Amino acid sequence: MTDVSRPISINHPPIIECGAGVASKVAEWANAKDADAVLVVADAFNADRVGLLGFGSGTKVEVFGDVVPEPDIANLEKLLALAGDLRPDLVVGFGGGSAMDLAKLAAVLGDGNQTLEEVVGAHLVKGRRPLLAQVPTTAGTGSEGGTRSLVTDTENARKMAVESLYMLADLVALDPQLTVSLPPAISAATGVDALAHCVESYTNVKAHPAIDIYATEGIRLIGRYLTRAVQNGEDMEARTALALASMYGGFCLGPVNTAAGHAIAYPLGTRHHLPHGHANAIIFPHVLAFNAEVAPERTALVLDALGTTAFRFCENLGIEMRMSQLGIPESDLEAMADEAFAIKRLLDNNPREVSREDILTIYKTAY
Amino acid sequence: MTDVSRPISINHPPIIECGAGVASKVAEWANAKDADAVLVVADAFNADRVGLLGFGSGTKVEVFGDVVPEPDIANLEKLLALAGDLRPDLVVGFGGGSAMDLAKLAAVLGDGNQTLEEVVGAHLVKGRRPLLAQVPTTAGTGSEGGTRSLVTDTENARKMAVESLYMLADLVALDPQLTVSLPPAISAATGVDALAHCVESYTNVKAHPAIDIYATEGIRLIGRYLTRAVQNGEDMEARTALALASMYGGFCLGPVNTAAGHAIAYPLGTRHHLPHGHANAIIFPHVLAFNAEVAPERTALVLDALGTTAFRFCENLGIEMRMSQLGIPESDLEAMADEAFAIKRLLDNNPREVSREDILTIYKTAY
Repeated sequence: MTDVSRPISINHPPIIECGAGVASKVAEWANAKDADAVLVVADAFNADRVGLLGFGSGTKVEVFGDVVPEPDIANLEKLLALAGDLRPDLVVGFGGGSAMDLAKLAAVLGDGNQTLEEVVGAHLVKGRRPLLAQVPTTAGTGSEGGTRSLVTDTENARKMAVESLYMLADLVALDPQLTVSLPPAISAATGVDALAHCVESYTNVKAHPAIDIYATEGIRLIGRYLTRAVQNGEDMEARTALALASMYGGFCLGPVNTAAGHAIAYPLGTRHHLPHGHANAIIFPHVLAFNAEVAPERTALVLDALGTTAFRFCENLGIEMRMSQLGIPESDLEAMADEAFAIKRLLDNNPREVSREDILTIYKTAY
Repeated sequence: MTDVSRPISINHPPIIECGAGVASKVAEWANAKDADAVLVVADAFNADRVGLLGFGSGTKVEVFGDVVPEPDIANLEKLLALAGDLRPDLVVGFGGGSAMDLAKLAAVLGDGNQTLEEVVGAHLVKGRRPLLAQVPTTAGTGSEGGTRSLVTDTENARKMAVESLYMLADLVALDPQLTVSLPPAISAATGVDALAHCVESYTNVKAHPAIDIYATEGIRLIGRYLTRAVQNGEDMEARTALALASMYGGFCLGPVNTAAGHAIAYPLGTRHHLPHGHANAIIFPHVLAFNAEVAPERTALVLDALGTTAFRFCENLGIEMRMSQLGIPESDLEAMADEAFAIKRLLDNNPREVSREDILTIYKTAY
């Protein structure tokens, strides 16, 4: 699990600006790169504060402000139509994971040379013309640090995943001022999502020392700062630390990825529409406990960083940790276990083998 | 010294390949990027093994194999003449810090749009056309991870420093097989150079948590693996760990940089031609001890990672730690102290104020 000689590919956005107010560096950088036409991809809330990116009147800025949570193909197609008209020199993702994921696809598909269907999978994107900048306004998905994008295929009830180095941002601006307005419940759920990325990458058969440094630092930062940010949204030190932790979680996803925690949490989202962060919060503490016997030192590091069990840590953040309280019928647990057990690509990453019965036991414990 | 909210710019090469044999990924990547003309910048030893980069007969590969240690303007000009003729699609630095530093300059100056004089300083380079890959064959300078290049102006006895984001590599290949042939003394001196980068960035007024993760991991890896690599050059795990540690040291140099250790070590190189790594090894342990009272926790982390004092750690690697044994006359210490005391830009980074008398005391202790 920790052999440094195992070959690995590590990807980072080459420029990361971090600190209060750095959102305006996007325009500075765009000017230096002669980017005259800019497409900002945002949800409605962030579309109203595009001014924070600092663009002046010399730049043509078009804002797509229609990003929806868990964006579907229709949402993407509307964006691609705009990108096709504008032919931007720069695409900026400005929002949470949904906005950033769509910005990645607008950057590589906006010119119309490839379709979504053609690039679903790994390394099928052939290139990218416009520059790509990511400005996260939540601290959770880590999309700003990674090479993946998810789009929902509503018709066939599946997620379409695209992975490509061409979707790695040229510039990431981590501006803690953008997250101060997040309500405590969102701060908590998104923060635990980032925590789950780090924990599941750290307790993972594919764990690697060159990625562990991000996983462990992310865990430590979240352990130290998430409660502070939930209690006081304007705590700039905590907000900055969480922005870094979220990106570190994103660094973990490409080369290592998550494991059983995310697999077992998925049915809570797909079948019962629980937000991704909340679903992870409910499940990953039980998976961490399940894995403890095969990864005692790593589990101890996590618990030490959180100062308590992962379950209590999440509960103390105000997260409802009982599935029974969230409208999930107990009769559905069997079907959920079937669904989770089918996600082999993540279960195979788990340091301890997970049977369908194990999954059912975890659901019952979490119920 | 550890305020996460202090704004910071962090740069990483976007693609890092790490592991035995990954040198050949340079050609794979170059092909995917349609790079048909390649200029490899190497010293004579590495020029003879350019085959390891994996280029096939379909690629026009020109090798500049004349890189000298501490390259001077004449060395650079010879390289630029070749680059001007070839107009490569890709420049590859293949060697130690000297080859990688020259490759950076060939990539940004090779087209002849700017001269060296015009870009000396920070952020004066206007752009770069060819791709840039770095393949280090020592583990020490960290040049592969950074944005700086040094050229010696022999005539005026000074170092010319160029810093530019355009000199950040597009791809870094950390291949431990390239360093197995390094003799123990070189492995030791270069490893301690990387250690000094990490230690001086960690005990630095500009230290930042987002850089500390590289500094501390670099220190831990060197503490754990450098002695092994010196004792058995073919220890692939140790060689891989040191390649990562060296790059982490490079990550520290841009946003934080070194401090008094490097400043006080410089005169050993400029006046007495001691190799850079050896000079740092002699000095930084004394600076670490000098700083201990103002940075006790950070000093403790370093000593814990090394398992002993920094002085003993270097001595155990077989490094001659007494200046008196290296042909440096005691009568020169005063003039050396004057010279080191003038390097304000690094002394100002030191967590404890350093007087000229302090420097002289350190020289006398190290003598």
